[in-house]
Amino acid sequence: MQRDRPLALVAGAGAGLGQSLVERFEAGGMTAVGLGRTRPDKTAGLFHQIDLADPEQVSPLLADLIAAHGAPEIVVHNTAELVIAPFAETSLAEYQRTWTSMVQTLVILGQTVLPAMVQSGGGALIVSGATASLRGGATFSAFASAKFALRGLTQSLAREFQPQGIHVAHVILDGIIETARSKTLHSLDPAKMMTPADIAETYWQLAHQPSSTWTQELDLRPPSEGF
Amino acid sequence: MQRDRPLALVAGAGAGLGQSLVERFEAGGMTAVGLGRTRPDKTAGLFHQIDLADPEQVSPLLADLIAAHGAPEIVVHNTAELVIAPFAETSLAEYQRTWTSMVQTLVILGQTVLPAMVQSGGGALIVSGATASLRGGATFSAFASAKFALRGLTQSLAREFQPQGIHVAHVILDGIIETARSKTLHSLDPAKMMTPADIAETYWQLAHQPSSTWTQELDLRPPSEGF
Amino acid sequence: MQRDRPLALVAGAGAGLGQSLVERFEAGGMTAVGLGRTRPDKTAGLFHQIDLADPEQVSPLLADLIAAHGAPEIVVHNTAELVIAPFAETSLAEYQRTWTSMVQTLVILGQTVLPAMVQSGGGALIVSGATASLRGGATFSAFASAKFALRGLTQSLAREFQPQGIHVAHVILDGIIETARSKTLHSLDPAKMMTPADIAETYWQLAHQPSSTWTQELDLRPPSEGF
Amino acid sequence: MQRDRPLALVAGAGAGLGQSLVERFEAGGMTAVGLGRTRPDKTAGLFHQIDLADPEQVSPLLADLIAAHGAPEIVVHNTAELVIAPFAETSLAEYQRTWTSMVQTLVILGQTVLPAMVQSGGGALIVSGATASLRGGATFSAFASAKFALRGLTQSLAREFQPQGIHVAHVILDGIIETARSKTLHSLDPAKMMTPADIAETYWQLAHQPSSTWTQELDLRPPSEGF
Repeated sequence: MQRDRPLALVAGAGAGLGQSLVERFEAGGMTAVGLGRTRPDKTAGLFHQIDLADPEQVSPLLADLIAAHGAPEIVVHNTAELVIAPFAETSLAEYQRTWTSMVQTLVILGQTVLPAMVQSGGGALIVSGATASLRGGATFSAFASAKFALRGLTQSLAREFQPQGIHVAHVILDGIIETARSKTLHSLDPAKMMTPADIAETYWQLAHQPSSTWTQELDLRPPSEGF
Repeated sequence: MQRDRPLALVAGAGAGLGQSLVERFEAGGMTAVGLGRTRPDKTAGLFHQIDLADPEQVSPLLADLIAAHGAPEIVVHNTAELVIAPFAETSLAEYQRTWTSMVQTLVILGQTVLPAMVQSGGGALIVSGATASLRGGATFSAFASAKFALRGLTQSLAREFQPQGIHVAHVILDGIIETARSKTLHSLDPAKMMTPADIAETYWQLAHQPSSTWTQELDLRPPSEGF
Repeated sequence: MQRDRPLALVAGAGAGLGQSLVERFEAGGMTAVGLGRTRPDKTAGLFHQIDLADPEQVSPLLADLIAAHGAPEIVVHNTAELVIAPFAETSLAEYQRTWTSMVQTLVILGQTVLPAMVQSGGGALIVSGATASLRGGATFSAFASAKFALRGLTQSLAREFQPQGIHVAHVILDGIIETARSKTLHSLDPAKMMTPADIAETYWQLAHQPSSTWTQELDLRPPSEGF
Repeated sequence: MQRDRPLALVAGAGAGLGQSLVERFEAGGMTAVGLGRTRPDKTAGLFHQIDLADPEQVSPLLADLIAAHGAPEIVVHNTAELVIAPFAETSLAEYQRTWTSMVQTLVILGQTVLPAMVQSGGGALIVSGATASLRGGATFSAFASAKFALRGLTQSLAREFQPQGIHVAHVILDGIIETARSKTLHSLDPAKMMTPADIAETYWQLAHQPSSTWTQELDLRPPSEGF
């Protein structure tokens, strides 16, 4: 095992925040591995193309990674599946898909990595939330419902695993993340967006919080964002 | 259509709160119809045995009921699927089942009744929440996750449908409901439990709140319950 | 003592919600007494002009009322002191005044009535909150700060006095109340305001909630109000 | 002006967290100045004995400090006034004192430093909250009421001043802070307390968050703390 460069996993490592997290963890001296359905054009660190909602794919891959690198010291859950539509125009399949992509993936990821992390004596699990984790919205019934679920799951994991030495944090990302795609979609001034590298820095700090003071939840937003 | 006794639907009408709601709505002069997987030994009002998570079963039945009675004036979502177990001992199937039983059922119910209610110009949709709607717990990861999801969905529906004239309320039931079953399971003094008839009375009041003041969320607990 | 018409107190009984509460309690067969700095032009029930922030005025008056009528069955705290200004333009005196008018008055009122209510075995204390009880605002630093304080105080009283048989509820009034004054000040369509009589009806219901199910907090808003 | 060592102010700089903050800011290359009613036995950095609730004392001192060092880059509000007693045994004077010590002090501090900070183009104002900022308690009516007020004020300041370039953060300290005094008072294992130096590190990180991602609120608790 290559303990000199401890393992960091980023589940949901697409272009944007996912890749910035991989970069930040690599820069911090870790072996950072991105996981996701779609390989980004450019990947910092390693990348494994995988359906994170399929336990048959996740379990053997993570077992191999843990065997090679030891239990991960940082695990980020960052999958996203945005649906924006009125209730009547949101299909049952879309509700199932948002839940499967965001909640089922954390169940599988957590059940695979947490036992090894507890055994190794530590580490951090950080989950990406959104404005919709705290408030529903007229056209966000599927997305908000899944993000609320993710928050309830993360809070439950914190209550169960923090006494066992694993830091479990939930980050409310309250703003638009600046990516090539969001700059195309939004009319918002990029100066008012959150840069992925800045967000990644906070995840890094969270994962390295002093041992007697852990944050379970924080929000992040641009200075100019109303809330 | 028998408009003289307007329709009330209780999805999740088992013994306990479900049946008390049916009774209260009948007593209030409504045609109250209970829906659920298991027919209770005694049923107030009508009861249809049905899998509320199956749109193929729900749609035709509710279409028939609406054809016969008009759009419902009160719809209660009261399905429950309690799982209490540590994270590692909660199967993926249990996560899926709690979500399907509590969230998918509201999606299907809402998509079936809300268009008719909007068209008829009013009505109330009331959703039963729990302590776990607001906080996760070490052995409640599946239940809390689904109850959080239900709250996010309900809040989204309120934001979308209240401006269209439909009152959408979420009730935090913060305590043990007194039922034949709970009296067996819990060592709690029944005098410290919530009686189903008392809860039903609040749902009735919610459904009849004055027209300029609607409650989106309230909590209910016994006087003696710590919180 | 005239127990046939039990006592209801409304602290902050100006024109608008205060007077509608007095009316509702009178209509419900109670002896309703309004208290406040300014006597409204028309008063339903009795009215005592009094500075509710001055214990020297409040204690003897309430002692007299309790001697004459018994412990109150309903007590409403409804004082308001609205300040809207940027932080730099809000004087320290205004911060003190909002706190004194809204928080100090509840301390004095509670300390005067709660012992008698506990001794008499019951009753309800209902406190009027606002949107600003849950969120601060750029020009609401004084008002939000005092409304937050009032909520923290009310929640503490609920935790202390509900086990002693006194129902303590906090109502989030999330919208504009229709009064002669608000119709002048706001460009909002009165059809989108909350009518004081409708709000009063909910307070009445809260004060008469079934004995095993008490609401500690609920929100009220017009159907058309965004939130 | 000695811009080479920018100014940090700690209002409420007693032994424990206050002094650890002064130390951390000094170690970070700042001129750290502690302010408070009681001079600690040992003081890191500078200390000015002052009644923070008295604008006549605060304004000239801070004007001098700003003239000498420039606008502060970090300002921490950390005053505390703990009262634990049943409602009936908490005097009106104690309510006034908790409010004055914790809320009035932030009004005065903010009105003195924020204009200079806005003019200088940046800086962070960090406010210490507590468990009681989010929930009342049976014997915490005075303390919770003041801590709620402080949170409402801080949130209002964030909404007003973040768009002007000042980061305003609120830290929920959810646990016992390890100090000489708390080790005497509490039977809690010191290993389960938060160390002041660890908390100070998080304040430092907050004050240096990347420019596009600011945290308005976070919680801190020991890994073993239930919540």
